[in-house]
Amino acid sequence: MKARVYVMLKNGVLDPQGEAVRHALGSLGFEGVDGVRQGKVIELDLADGTTEATVTEMCEKLLANTVIESYRVEMG
Amino acid sequence: MKARVYVMLKNGVLDPQGEAVRHALGSLGFEGVDGVRQGKVIELDLADGTTEATVTEMCEKLLANTVIESYRVEMG
Repeated sequence: MKARVYVMLKNGVLDPQGEAVRHALGSLGFEGVDGVRQGKVIELDLADGTTEATVTEMCEKLLANTVIESYRVEMG
Repeated sequence: MKARVYVMLKNGVLDPQGEAVRHALGSLGFEGVDGVRQGKVIELDLADGTTEATVTEMCEKLLANTVIESYRVEMG
């Protein structure tokens, strides 16, 4: 079975990578790019029967730095 | 307006980061993790009226390395 985890920086946390992308898009001539935030998407290939609680525990322990990041789990 | 871009390594391309996460999950005692692939999610805050074609052009020019990565655009 598949699960997906989306990890993004929490609002208010500076996103230097997003800023760099925003500047780069501007220098390539793209107008109207007011903000860019970059995060991670992690696709997990799991044994059948793995629960959302287990995936959440993976996030808490490893996949997300919960001090500065928030995460969302999508099962199936 | 908002748009989201998901960038993942193409199938068949080695994902060392995903492998590292898989091993780490195993060493933390999580069983049944058969595969992990890690990609980027980029949230764009754009001027109203920005078209999907423009966001696609951003992907082709900057956001994705189309040799080894595939991308998906989600508008709104």
